[in-house]
Amino acid sequence: MGLYLYAMEYPTKLVEDAVTEIAKLPGIGRKTALRLALHLLRRPEQESVELARALETLRLKTTYCKTCHHISEAEQCHVCSNPRRDRSLLCVVENSRDVMAIESTGQYQGLYHVLGGVISPLDGVGPDDLNMATLLARLQPEAEVREVILALGATVEGDTTGFYIQKKAQGSGQKVSTIARGIPVGGELEYADELTLARSIAQRVAY
Amino acid sequence: MGLYLYAMEYPTKLVEDAVTEIAKLPGIGRKTALRLALHLLRRPEQESVELARALETLRLKTTYCKTCHHISEAEQCHVCSNPRRDRSLLCVVENSRDVMAIESTGQYQGLYHVLGGVISPLDGVGPDDLNMATLLARLQPEAEVREVILALGATVEGDTTGFYIQKKAQGSGQKVSTIARGIPVGGELEYADELTLARSIAQRVAY
Repeated sequence: MGLYLYAMEYPTKLVEDAVTEIAKLPGIGRKTALRLALHLLRRPEQESVELARALETLRLKTTYCKTCHHISEAEQCHVCSNPRRDRSLLCVVENSRDVMAIESTGQYQGLYHVLGGVISPLDGVGPDDLNMATLLARLQPEAEVREVILALGATVEGDTTGFYIQKKAQGSGQKVSTIARGIPVGGELEYADELTLARSIAQRVAY
Repeated sequence: MGLYLYAMEYPTKLVEDAVTEIAKLPGIGRKTALRLALHLLRRPEQESVELARALETLRLKTTYCKTCHHISEAEQCHVCSNPRRDRSLLCVVENSRDVMAIESTGQYQGLYHVLGGVISPLDGVGPDDLNMATLLARLQPEAEVREVILALGATVEGDTTGFYIQKKAQGSGQKVSTIARGIPVGGELEYADELTLARSIAQRVAY
């Protein structure tokens, strides 16, 4: 990191504008943005046009599932609208990336509910700031759901959110479970943190 | 690095398309591309639209200076068309990033010539693959140029290119100099700090 005596001299306003816009992306500084802009200039026109179209279409055409709030192109996402999914299982996650991660395992056949965050009093995030009302509506005794699986982060906020949902679900007759915490498959015991290791022993399962 | 048993399940084709296009950029893999796409979805529509417009306009409206081949919006770049620049000095560089780096020092008042690469027999790059003919035309005895400053990388290819230009310029009455090696040998121009770069131009030595 040197001392910057002079601002970078961009050859044109177009380059400067592109660098400014690209550098708004997280984790991308102006030097990287310039590298990307100059890369686009060296490539065929079509590549920049397709990138621009994909970014604009993504933002303008993407909507959120009315039922589970997952990223969708229609009123119902591809999970909720799939008749082969098990409607008695409901997995509660923080965001769409978690849905994608679980879907990528190919092992879960139930439905999802995307909260859009976790309860965090320090950040001023309460249940009303999340997709909580629609979740509770799906947990009514007359609903199809028989088990709620909490797949939230192992943080104070994740635990608080899980505790809140579990309290609200009480008396609805639905089982509430949470994903197993333990040593990752293929992980070494000696590199695991103490909390994870302790929990993996406390919550051991029959061999 | 784990074993990937299943492909990532994208929630929509729009997300997948955006990830595919973003991941074509150098140094950006599909995981980073997904992170960027999801970031855009969380931000106001306007941000994606402005990014898309900036990228498309950059590529479609950018042209190259007819005189020096630097990135430009018009037939002549902002350096060549500036009447206050010293037309007796001509700095030969590999690419537009080098021009930007030297311009950022604020110390050089002459003109440039962007070769678009260096002579590299191993890569099959000869003088005819570069903007060499237009450079030699600017080095005719009747031209305004009195001194040619070679600001090429300190590599075998850079030295070969410099030697080629010096041979061609012989007898034209122009002085040929090369930037001082205050820049670490093996270092790239664009990564040098402005002070070192400025000094290397001021203390150029006869070739």
